Amino acid sequence: MERATDSGKDGDHQRQVSDDDDEETEIEETAYDFHDFNIHQAVIKDNVRNEAYRAAILQHQDNYIKDRVVVDVGSGTGILSIFCAQAGAKRVYAVEDTEIALQAQKVMEANNLSERVIVLHGYVEDVGINEKVDVIVSDWMDQLLLYNHENMLGSVLTARDRLLKPGGLIMPSNATLYIAPATLPDRYSSKIDFWRNVYGIDMSAMVPWAIQDAYEDPCVEKIKSENLLALPQVVKRVDCYTINIQELESFKSRFEFQCLTRATFHGFAFWFDVEFSGPVTSPADSNAPPLQSSSNHPTTSGQKRKRDDPIEAIVLSTAPDKPPTHWEQMVVYLNNPIDVEQGHRIEGSVTLTPNQEEDGPKVHIRLEYKSGHRSFVREAVMR
Amino acid sequence: MERATDSGKDGDHQRQVSDDDDEETEIEETAYDFHDFNIHQAVIKDNVRNEAYRAAILQHQDNYIKDRVVVDVGSGTGILSIFCAQAGAKRVYAVEDTEIALQAQKVMEANNLSERVIVLHGYVEDVGINEKVDVIVSDWMDQLLLYNHENMLGSVLTARDRLLKPGGLIMPSNATLYIAPATLPDRYSSKIDFWRNVYGIDMSAMVPWAIQDAYEDPCVEKIKSENLLALPQVVKRVDCYTINIQELESFKSRFEFQCLTRATFHGFAFWFDVEFSGPVTSPADSNAPPLQSSSNHPTTSGQKRKRDDPIEAIVLSTAPDKPPTHWEQMVVYLNNPIDVEQGHRIEGSVTLTPNQEEDGPKVHIRLEYKSGHRSFVREAVMR
Repeated sequence: MERATDSGKDGDHQRQVSDDDDEETEIEETAYDFHDFNIHQAVIKDNVRNEAYRAAILQHQDNYIKDRVVVDVGSGTGILSIFCAQAGAKRVYAVEDTEIALQAQKVMEANNLSERVIVLHGYVEDVGINEKVDVIVSDWMDQLLLYNHENMLGSVLTARDRLLKPGGLIMPSNATLYIAPATLPDRYSSKIDFWRNVYGIDMSAMVPWAIQDAYEDPCVEKIKSENLLALPQVVKRVDCYTINIQELESFKSRFEFQCLTRATFHGFAFWFDVEFSGPVTSPADSNAPPLQSSSNHPTTSGQKRKRDDPIEAIVLSTAPDKPPTHWEQMVVYLNNPIDVEQGHRIEGSVTLTPNQEEDGPKVHIRLEYKSGHRSFVREAVMR
Repeated sequence: MERATDSGKDGDHQRQVSDDDDEETEIEETAYDFHDFNIHQAVIKDNVRNEAYRAAILQHQDNYIKDRVVVDVGSGTGILSIFCAQAGAKRVYAVEDTEIALQAQKVMEANNLSERVIVLHGYVEDVGINEKVDVIVSDWMDQLLLYNHENMLGSVLTARDRLLKPGGLIMPSNATLYIAPATLPDRYSSKIDFWRNVYGIDMSAMVPWAIQDAYEDPCVEKIKSENLLALPQVVKRVDCYTINIQELESFKSRFEFQCLTRATFHGFAFWFDVEFSGPVTSPADSNAPPLQSSSNHPTTSGQKRKRDDPIEAIVLSTAPDKPPTHWEQMVVYLNNPIDVEQGHRIEGSVTLTPNQEEDGPKVHIRLEYKSGHRSFVREAVMR
């Protein structure tokens, strides 16, 4: 607990402990019950994320947001709500379950927005919004896209089914999770290989422990496109307009990679992108072809991906070849790397199973893969 | 739990799950019960630390180590034991309580040292070494010097009282904990001030939460000498040859700093150094003056400090102006910074109180300080 500050101006709990009449010892008691404050800081500092949301909000300003009603699901500090208010929304419900809602309320007051942005402290399922909304905006994505600790996508879908007017806008509109085999020799070497020679001493006996320590859990880290051993494949596509909450349960996705180069295969990398398209049922889009191709291969376009309809949808991508975000990428390392040749095939499947456990929700990741005539299973848990 | 590798060669728990006769799915069950493996890795990679110990061992090789018996208290991976064996020790007891001892045993075997380095899995108080030793070597230091989670200095003093021959060598021989007020504007700004303007939005309401999140606990971080606002002062000196275990209980140390420059005072920085002198009771040193002056001010010498006797003692320093170590420095931030002028006095005291608590040992840090006519109290807990 934090006990003291050099200013008592905000504190009720000052007490004098000095016996010098001129002096007053200032002690301020503060105890905020915040949930993972660091993530709010990382999000606020993530310009790629914030600029993508802001660009998308401005793109849809005239058609969907101006003079309309918005709900921000899991609003955190309220920055997306403020972007919507700045884009002319008549009213924004900023719904946040953690105590950061209390600070978000103060942020709205400080920026003279408390009339237009209504901060609601609770889950969107419970807060009792008594009108239909035109727009849902939310940043619900986790490193493995679907399964953050609060199942925020589930809340978005609940809001969609209960609150969104027909033809309303959901931001983002769709999302895709990718997988690719990766070679990460520098990182592997710095964590593992140095034990083989320490001041001329053979400490290889430590290697199994080092592997367990470094790579038992999935690693969130920044990789580069040159770390990829093969073109990525899609693990899961999510259309926020049409997906059902049941589709977020456990699922299995097959993959088949052909290695582009001779290298050491250290692990599987995951990342995602989200797109900010308008609703496909809106008049302008009703005759447009489906947004997503049936191909398992992603497009290789940049931060903005060209759609088949005239408006280019804003894309927020966490891919290794895109500007870095606070999500970085996620890697499940193999316990022992595999040397592969150019043209070598890696085939198998990934199964993602979310579940609620006593010490917090988890995603169980099961990777089955064949390399040559050998088959392997690698399981990991994302907390 | 880690479940799979691409090689079953070390595992007993392979099972076949493929229905293809050519293929075999390899799953290896591993579950090491290690304690904070990361610290072993940080220590092994800390060249400043390792080279200081090695240089000290070589310096005392002829007089104290060659053909003698050594005990390494809390030996970890056993690197200091190996240095002693390489310096000609007849026998080294590597005493380690955590399961890293099992790997250290394998390291000794891999390096053909298992005859001379005897790995003992347990506390030095319990392992039953049945001979007196000539040398105690140990790396027992924590960021706050005295109070690591296992009270290793306590074990060193127990080993000294029970096992060390009269005139024997203790490495390190003495240690000093320092304190200085610091100005850390860049770090403060990046953690706190950016909330004041986020895309033109005033998010100052988040500042109290940000301060609590970033600075409630002491921060272990690398600072530079230009971050110091005043010359450091000694909090505690420890002479490993003479100190009693009771002296490691709670103690209070007064300080009085005079600021060298106009700046913002953000927090108190702590660091330590240790020295590898021979025993003062040894024949060569018996007429030498005491090692430590009574001054509260540290010397300003470099990594090697000149002693009054002819041998220059090796010093391992974690000071901000010295090459970085894995200990870095420790900072207790003020909740609200104070602007100070050149010549400004900061006086007060620091009280360190170790205690064992259910969720692990802690050190309670109480800083009382006066700046101008105002007095403050800042408490923090080091886990």
